[in-house]
Amino acid sequence: MNVLPPPCGVVTLLTDFGSRDCYVGTLEGAVLKAHVGARIVHLGHAIPAQDVSTAALHVDAAIDRFPTGTVHVVVVDPGVGTERRMLAVSAHGCYWIAPDNGVLSAVLDADRVDVRVLDPERLGIRPASRTFHGRDVFAPIAGRLARGQIGFGALGLRIDDPVRVSVPGRGAGPEGRVVLVDHFGNLITDLGPNAASSARGLVVADTEAPLVGTYGERGTGELVALVDSFDRLEVAVVGGSAAERLGVGVGTAVRVLHD
Amino acid sequence: MNVLPPPCGVVTLLTDFGSRDCYVGTLEGAVLKAHVGARIVHLGHAIPAQDVSTAALHVDAAIDRFPTGTVHVVVVDPGVGTERRMLAVSAHGCYWIAPDNGVLSAVLDADRVDVRVLDPERLGIRPASRTFHGRDVFAPIAGRLARGQIGFGALGLRIDDPVRVSVPGRGAGPEGRVVLVDHFGNLITDLGPNAASSARGLVVADTEAPLVGTYGERGTGELVALVDSFDRLEVAVVGGSAAERLGVGVGTAVRVLHD
Amino acid sequence: MNVLPPPCGVVTLLTDFGSRDCYVGTLEGAVLKAHVGARIVHLGHAIPAQDVSTAALHVDAAIDRFPTGTVHVVVVDPGVGTERRMLAVSAHGCYWIAPDNGVLSAVLDADRVDVRVLDPERLGIRPASRTFHGRDVFAPIAGRLARGQIGFGALGLRIDDPVRVSVPGRGAGPEGRVVLVDHFGNLITDLGPNAASSARGLVVADTEAPLVGTYGERGTGELVALVDSFDRLEVAVVGGSAAERLGVGVGTAVRVLHD
Repeated sequence: MNVLPPPCGVVTLLTDFGSRDCYVGTLEGAVLKAHVGARIVHLGHAIPAQDVSTAALHVDAAIDRFPTGTVHVVVVDPGVGTERRMLAVSAHGCYWIAPDNGVLSAVLDADRVDVRVLDPERLGIRPASRTFHGRDVFAPIAGRLARGQIGFGALGLRIDDPVRVSVPGRGAGPEGRVVLVDHFGNLITDLGPNAASSARGLVVADTEAPLVGTYGERGTGELVALVDSFDRLEVAVVGGSAAERLGVGVGTAVRVLHD
Repeated sequence: MNVLPPPCGVVTLLTDFGSRDCYVGTLEGAVLKAHVGARIVHLGHAIPAQDVSTAALHVDAAIDRFPTGTVHVVVVDPGVGTERRMLAVSAHGCYWIAPDNGVLSAVLDADRVDVRVLDPERLGIRPASRTFHGRDVFAPIAGRLARGQIGFGALGLRIDDPVRVSVPGRGAGPEGRVVLVDHFGNLITDLGPNAASSARGLVVADTEAPLVGTYGERGTGELVALVDSFDRLEVAVVGGSAAERLGVGVGTAVRVLHD
Repeated sequence: MNVLPPPCGVVTLLTDFGSRDCYVGTLEGAVLKAHVGARIVHLGHAIPAQDVSTAALHVDAAIDRFPTGTVHVVVVDPGVGTERRMLAVSAHGCYWIAPDNGVLSAVLDADRVDVRVLDPERLGIRPASRTFHGRDVFAPIAGRLARGQIGFGALGLRIDDPVRVSVPGRGAGPEGRVVLVDHFGNLITDLGPNAASSARGLVVADTEAPLVGTYGERGTGELVALVDSFDRLEVAVVGGSAAERLGVGVGTAVRVLHD
C-alpha cells in the first residue's frame, strides 16, 4: 500500500485563471484561511482556458519536482458546478487535488496510487458559489491537508475509476507531434529521450534540426533538437524562437531522423 | 469599538505595477526587510494604470477572503508625492493600507471601522523617493504591522473623512452595467444576487442570456447569466468569451429580464 | 574581508522564463526541495530572452532592497550547458547566484566582494539536464545556502576574474540614453541624480520634459522628467505613457537641459 507522506506545508496552484483578475489571490486567501502558515507556489496560471490536456502535461512535469508532502491543487475545471466528481490523490510522495476530468492522468499512472472522491459535506464544507469550487472546496481542503488538520483517508471514499485523458507522452518515434510552444518559442514534442538514441535529428515542417546536447553547442540563430527540461525532445532556435522561424505550432507533425 | 485583530503574518499586495519590471519584487523586499517572516500574497498587479475604481472593486472582492489579521496593501496611487494623505484602516478583521484616494471605499462601509492617517515621520520613516511610496512607506509599515512590532493605533491620528469613490455595487436591477471583463471574457456587472430573484435572464447588446446556476448547465458556446464568484451577476459564454461574442466591454448597459 | 551574513531564508528569483509555462514553478520546487521553509520572492520573470544587460540593471535595483542574508538567484543564461562558469557572490550583505556572464556586474563593484566558482560535483549535484541549470544547479544550491546547510566558502574556489558587462549607470550628463521602458511607458535613462542638479529638464525626441520632484506636480497628460525609483532620471507622461507619446524606446538619446 501507499505510505502517506507527512504534509510539508507547501501548496502549489495550477490554474487557467490568468493573472489579470483577483481569482488567484482569492484562491491563495482560501488556502491561508485554512492554514495560515502554508507556503504557496504558483505552478502556473496560463493554461489555456479549460484545456485539460495542457494542464495534464504540466502536472506530469511537476512529479518528483517538489518536496515530499506537497499538496498540489489543479483548477482547470470546465465542469464546475455540475455532477463531476472532485478528487484527492496520494501518489509520488505528494497529494494532488483536482476535478475528476483527467488533469491528474499522469499521476494516476503511478505504481502506488490512492484515489479518493472528495466529500465536501462530510468535511463540513458548503461551497459559497457554484462557479468557483477552486476557492470554495479545493483550496480549503488543500489548506487543511497541508496543515495536517485532516488525514488523507478522511477526505472521501476510495475509487478506482477516475477519468483519464491521454497525456502527451515520451514516444520512441519515429513519428510525433508538437504538444506545447513555450515562452521562448521552443517546440516541445511528445517524443522522449529514447527517440533520441541513434537519431541524428528531428524534421519539422520539412526542416532538419540536428540533435545536440544543449543550446550552447550551436551558434545563435541555428535550429537544433535536444532533450529538454520536460524530459522530452524539443526543437529550438538558439537565442531565438523556433515557432516563429518555422511558422508552426501545437499539433505539427515531427519525425525522427536516423542515419 | 473595533477590536483589533492580532496580526497573522500575511501581507497582500494589490497594485497597477504590471509584472514586467522589478517594482513588485522591490515592494516585497521592503515588506520582508521589516518582517523577514512575512508571507506575501499577490492579490493582483494588473489593475489598469491609476484606475482607482477597478482597484476598489478588487478590494471589495478581498473582504472576508483572507485570514483574520491579514495586512492588505493597495498601491494604485496617481497622487504619489503630492499632499494626498495615506491611510491605515482596521475593518472586517483585517488591516488595509493605501493612499487616501477611494481605493478602500468598500472597506470604509464596514459597521466597525477605524481609519488613521499614516504619519511616516512619527514612525521614523523617511521616503527615499517621491515617486514610490509603496516601497518607501506602505510596505515597511505593512511589514511592521504584520510582525506585531507596532500597534495599529500608533500609526497616526484617527480621521472620519477619508476619500470615497463609488464602488460598483450589487444593484437590484432592472438596470445595470458591465464593470469588469475578466480573463475568460466574462462580463461582470454591478447587479447583485437580489436582481436574480424571479428574473429569467439578462439582456446585453440586444441579446438575451438565460439565468442559470452554473456554467455547466448549458452546452459549450451557449450564452448564460449567473451569480459569479464576485457575488455579482455576470454574462458568460460556456467555454468561450462573452466579451468577444457580443463585442462589448466595461460600461455596456445590462437589463434584467423578468417573466 | 567580507563578513558573511547569516542566511535569512529568503530566496529571490530573476529570470527570462516568462510566466506562461511551469519553468518558474519547477524552479521554486527545486529551492523548496533543498529548504522546505524558504520564502521565495519573484524579482521578475519578464527579462527579454537572454538579455544579460537588462538583467544586470534589475540586479542593480535589488541591491540593499532585501533583508540581510537574502539569496538572490539570476537565471538569464544563454550559455547554459556550455563551459561557462557558474558563480556565487557574497556582497552587499546578501548572496548572489548566477551564470558567469555579467548579470551580476553591479554587485561585483561592491567594496567588499567574495566571488566563488560553483563546483556542483564537489557539492554532490549532478544536473539532470543540460538545458536547465537554474533548476538543476542554482536552485538547489540557493536552497541549501538559505537553509544554512552549507557555508558560502564551501561552494567553490575564489576567483577574481568574473565576466563583467557594462551596467546602465547613473551618468552625470549632459548626454545619456533610454535603457528601459517600464510597464507604465516611463523611459528610464542611464542618467543619475547628479545629472539633475542645476538642470531644468531633459530633451528626448526633440521634446523638452521639465524636471519635477514627483508625478503629481503636473497635470494629467503633461510630460515630465524626474528621479525615479531606479534612482535614475526618467521621462514620464503624468497618468499616461511617454513611450507611446514620443514614439521612442530603448536606445533613444537623451540630453540634459541647463538654464
